[in-house]
Amino acid sequence: MTGIGFAVSAEDGCARRGHLETAHGIVQTPAFMPVGTAATVKAMTSEAVAETGAGIVLANTYHLMLRPGPERVRALGGLHRFMNWPSPILTDSGGFQVMSLSALRDVTESGVAFRSHIDGGHFELTPERAIEIQGMLGADVAMALDECIPHPRPKDDVARAMRLTSRWAERSKAAFAASPGRGLFGIVQGGSFNDLRAESADDLVRIGFDGYALGGFAVGEEKTVMLSVLEATAPLLPAGAPRYLMGVGKPEDLVEAVARGIDMFDCVLPTRSGRTGQAFTREGALNLRNAVHADDPRPLDESCACPVCRGYGRAYVNHLVRAGEILGSVLLTWHNLHYYQDLMAEMRGAIEAGGFQAFAIDFAARRTEAGGAKAVRAQGGG
Amino acid sequence: MTGIGFAVSAEDGCARRGHLETAHGIVQTPAFMPVGTAATVKAMTSEAVAETGAGIVLANTYHLMLRPGPERVRALGGLHRFMNWPSPILTDSGGFQVMSLSALRDVTESGVAFRSHIDGGHFELTPERAIEIQGMLGADVAMALDECIPHPRPKDDVARAMRLTSRWAERSKAAFAASPGRGLFGIVQGGSFNDLRAESADDLVRIGFDGYALGGFAVGEEKTVMLSVLEATAPLLPAGAPRYLMGVGKPEDLVEAVARGIDMFDCVLPTRSGRTGQAFTREGALNLRNAVHADDPRPLDESCACPVCRGYGRAYVNHLVRAGEILGSVLLTWHNLHYYQDLMAEMRGAIEAGGFQAFAIDFAARRTEAGGAKAVRAQGGG
Repeated sequence: MTGIGFAVSAEDGCARRGHLETAHGIVQTPAFMPVGTAATVKAMTSEAVAETGAGIVLANTYHLMLRPGPERVRALGGLHRFMNWPSPILTDSGGFQVMSLSALRDVTESGVAFRSHIDGGHFELTPERAIEIQGMLGADVAMALDECIPHPRPKDDVARAMRLTSRWAERSKAAFAASPGRGLFGIVQGGSFNDLRAESADDLVRIGFDGYALGGFAVGEEKTVMLSVLEATAPLLPAGAPRYLMGVGKPEDLVEAVARGIDMFDCVLPTRSGRTGQAFTREGALNLRNAVHADDPRPLDESCACPVCRGYGRAYVNHLVRAGEILGSVLLTWHNLHYYQDLMAEMRGAIEAGGFQAFAIDFAARRTEAGGAKAVRAQGGG
Repeated sequence: MTGIGFAVSAEDGCARRGHLETAHGIVQTPAFMPVGTAATVKAMTSEAVAETGAGIVLANTYHLMLRPGPERVRALGGLHRFMNWPSPILTDSGGFQVMSLSALRDVTESGVAFRSHIDGGHFELTPERAIEIQGMLGADVAMALDECIPHPRPKDDVARAMRLTSRWAERSKAAFAASPGRGLFGIVQGGSFNDLRAESADDLVRIGFDGYALGGFAVGEEKTVMLSVLEATAPLLPAGAPRYLMGVGKPEDLVEAVARGIDMFDCVLPTRSGRTGQAFTREGALNLRNAVHADDPRPLDESCACPVCRGYGRAYVNHLVRAGEILGSVLLTWHNLHYYQDLMAEMRGAIEAGGFQAFAIDFAARRTEAGGAKAVRAQGGG
């Protein structure tokens, strides 16, 4: 095999159950990738990440090119060995982080010059350099460099960035040396304009990638806009290739996107929320900073069988969060990643059983019910 | 059994190999107790603490009385359940923390009134209240309230505090309701004055405790002073009761103190150092912030078999520490606790084999050698 393999083993409506084959193992899809920005899923050992059921993690080219540097990571045996993660790794190209984190960006046809958010040092990222860096990191899945612009922007600006992304995609493909179990994904841009998304998808499919990502979401647009773009764009992508919705999202977003044919996700939400006191549960989110939990011995999620829910109660997590203890971040992150992986496993099971629509309805109902119950309690002064 | 049991199974010189029997299991001595100040060994899950080989942890009455409050912990089923730690727990009495952390202390015959370092709230700790709190927490080993004064102080001040500690010890003993597997330790004070230490030991032995702690060390005195006081005082304590050296210390201190008949230790050093980038190794300490580690793939300690040393290298830990990643604190703390537990296990083995003196000589030599090698490398510009 050259590149990575992808096989869809079951379909239910537009939802797909699949397997992504890489140099470091097979990823079950739909898959959620925990974000390991700086070669660490924040607050988690790699063993604990694996324990949650995660089969692939994402790492950030932008962060790793600044620190510790790709040459160093390569000399140390690559990212898998460096971060003690033996399973697949997807690296993003750095396009999104250059836009959101760095200072003094200068985008030209050649690439993007910027200053590091860490020490102000000058860096340049071209499509070719992004591919080179991801190769040095040893990514199983590399991403083509894109220009990701903020939302909203005039259509002309969005079109210009999308067309630059297509030209960069062509250069990325040319720079990428295919090898067994390593693949390259292109990134569809075009904002909330279905015609621009279609043009972008057409460009990328013509170039030919191992998978197709949908970028430029989770930048402030309305949820309905994203779902409508997904509905229009996903069918334009090859059925035999994985589809990856970048940077999304909330649990309900994952269910909606899987229903529209998405296979892969990444998002900082479970990890970042964990560090700010939030727990995801089957009945909605809890803020563990809230004093209402101070005497509550129940686990974070009564339906959850993760090590955190088996061993620790809400009162304890409330205490840790209020005391600023690292363990509060650790336990909440661990549980949240479990919640996300459990959700993905439930969706995979539902697709296999042909019951995805029923699952999605039940998923929404449980949360609405819980939300209703909460509203009643709130009125009652609780 | 009422109270806790203690049996010495082997002696080698003054060093003792023993077993402390408590309501939550047997502790192998000499034992090192990781410090779980606010009901958490900082940055560690309780499962990871257990994995290091720790058989008992310490928690702080002072911190827990302020937050989350002992009544709350009792209502939640006690400290073991609260922090998910099924093995023995020793709680200190709060005396040391009141001295070192709180503001506006007012020590009277009755007890000590103080303001919380968290929110300035008024609290009072008497010998009776300290016992009551430790009972609500569910400690296996409770400590009698002591007055721990800074070093150095005039002998009259030290004598006054020591005699108050003795009177408080008597009240503590009277307030303590013995129950199976739960015990109370008295704390020997007297600073660096052997005659005051002897008077204190005599007072406490007359009152009668399940074990005897040596307090008032690690407050800035010379190392030789501590060892000389230990040599003079340990023999005055009952051979059949455990001896606990509070707040000590560095690895070499543990070896020196075990050689002088100490059975139990606690110290924040392995955990606090872990959060500031330091690793303990068999060849001395490493500062993982140092750029010299940035390209070094070796484990923290090449002789260590802990999960951190099996999975992660110095270059990675250096990266995590420099990037301010939580995982840096987690991995260093985990390794350091392993190092301490391994050291205790080695000492227990050496005592059983009758080779403690040889062990102590070898322990010191390895560190001196490594220190010498380091000095040479430094001269060579390394």
